Amino acid sequence: MRQDPRLIVVGSIGLDTVRTPRDSRTDVLGGSVSYACAAAAGFVKTGMVGVVGTDFPREGRSLFRKLGIDMRGLQTAEGATFRWSGVYAKNMNNRKTLKTELNVFRSFQPRLPPSYRRAPFVFLANIAPALQLHVLGQMERRPDFVMADTMDLWIRIANADLRTLVAQVDLLTVNESEAHHFTGQRNLIRAARILRDMGPRYILVKRGEHGSVLFSEDGILLMPAYPLEDVVDPTGAGDSFAGGLMGRLAAGGRVSTDAIARAMLYGSVVASFNVEAFSLERLGALSPAAIEERASLFRRMCRIR
Amino acid sequence: MRQDPRLIVVGSIGLDTVRTPRDSRTDVLGGSVSYACAAAAGFVKTGMVGVVGTDFPREGRSLFRKLGIDMRGLQTAEGATFRWSGVYAKNMNNRKTLKTELNVFRSFQPRLPPSYRRAPFVFLANIAPALQLHVLGQMERRPDFVMADTMDLWIRIANADLRTLVAQVDLLTVNESEAHHFTGQRNLIRAARILRDMGPRYILVKRGEHGSVLFSEDGILLMPAYPLEDVVDPTGAGDSFAGGLMGRLAAGGRVSTDAIARAMLYGSVVASFNVEAFSLERLGALSPAAIEERASLFRRMCRIR
Repeated sequence: MRQDPRLIVVGSIGLDTVRTPRDSRTDVLGGSVSYACAAAAGFVKTGMVGVVGTDFPREGRSLFRKLGIDMRGLQTAEGATFRWSGVYAKNMNNRKTLKTELNVFRSFQPRLPPSYRRAPFVFLANIAPALQLHVLGQMERRPDFVMADTMDLWIRIANADLRTLVAQVDLLTVNESEAHHFTGQRNLIRAARILRDMGPRYILVKRGEHGSVLFSEDGILLMPAYPLEDVVDPTGAGDSFAGGLMGRLAAGGRVSTDAIARAMLYGSVVASFNVEAFSLERLGALSPAAIEERASLFRRMCRIR
Repeated sequence: MRQDPRLIVVGSIGLDTVRTPRDSRTDVLGGSVSYACAAAAGFVKTGMVGVVGTDFPREGRSLFRKLGIDMRGLQTAEGATFRWSGVYAKNMNNRKTLKTELNVFRSFQPRLPPSYRRAPFVFLANIAPALQLHVLGQMERRPDFVMADTMDLWIRIANADLRTLVAQVDLLTVNESEAHHFTGQRNLIRAARILRDMGPRYILVKRGEHGSVLFSEDGILLMPAYPLEDVVDPTGAGDSFAGGLMGRLAAGGRVSTDAIARAMLYGSVVASFNVEAFSLERLGALSPAAIEERASLFRRMCRIR
């Protein structure tokens, strides 16, 4: 009998076409669930919830299997897999979406297999808040810890749904511009206060190459990003950060601000590996020893003696 | 008999006219030396080297005196004091210089009083590299630790002088765009490597609200910025950071990477106070207890347990 996943992740699975100033890839494995699950699976038994089309390549499933990801929540629908294409600017920070084809994602209704419904940790990656709520509604008991991601689009077109969702999660993660648009506040401390008033005990602000900031009743925690000499493809940085964080947190058990801080460090490390290659090329071949080595190096970089 | 300063600072002293989205000030005390000395003087006996015009307000000198700054290196020249005016954008990060009037600064030749010439710590704030070199040339013995700041202008129009200077300093501080322009390298790790090859053991990259990064033979140290709810006037943030850093370092004695890291933390704290008010309003009334309290809070924000 298979073990039930301790962490489940819902979001998008897609085929990405990515152009950076130096290289490009066509129709490679991507999507928030792919990155987050690949990042989390090294720490804890992780189950994915998502949909692919009948054209989804066999290699995608093989990689998920190799990583030990539970695929009982992966649906296959008649039609083409979700596709995204984008191009990165010279500084590798700004990107432009060239095309989004929803395909089978358009009529996606996440359906949790029974083995997922008592998972203590849930990561609702960026999809429509109504779908995120639909996943939460299928849980047999209130999970110990729910983290949700979102984006500008939902803040604009699904604000009420998003607020209903946010009231039910433990940790909301946003970037600086989302924090600003959601609250009307440009200052991060004020924005985080407003967001915490909406419900979540924790607000995690992602700042890309500048790291992240955690706001909680225990105050503010400042986490730099792991500095890299060669960024090959930034796609999935935020999702692998969040996935690594949730995987590490779920593996540890008791949730506290200190535990989240440690998990953020591991999330940063996994994300730093992820952007050193296209698609899941690096996460697909990442050893626990490599993670520990970089985590210990990163800890030293952040330590003021 | 007066004590000789342990730290001397050379740079500009000026009267600033500053406009932020919410408020403005006209002809208030400013300049790199003013900010750096005010930040350093709380930690160590600091001597200023600079020039003012005959119109320099009595209140300026009173404030320097109140802060315990040694003014034997402050020259007064016939004419008007250096003036700068600028306006900050809504996000408080980008600023535009409206006007720079060099006035007495045009013919400034820094002249060190004898009591300054054996100072073990020297901060060469941002002025023409030829003047920075001229100061170093007047020292009776090689100082224990020399830090230099610079700007895009000197990288462009005084590149050879700047390289001569950089070869003689222990720590060079630049921002990200200066690092890029000076080395041709966009990646910070690569740029820092090139800069260290020019001579300095330490490269300190200032990233404004995102903190700073120290590069040395001991690796990389990542320091976030102290997060603030209300930034009133960012003018002098970099100079008060550098001044606080040098003051704390000079007060401590032996220089090491760990000592610089601790000094960076104090520099960040002093800079965070500085931007909470216009001009030197806050630095002029800052108690050691307030600095220690915020430093301890800041330490907690950076600690991963």
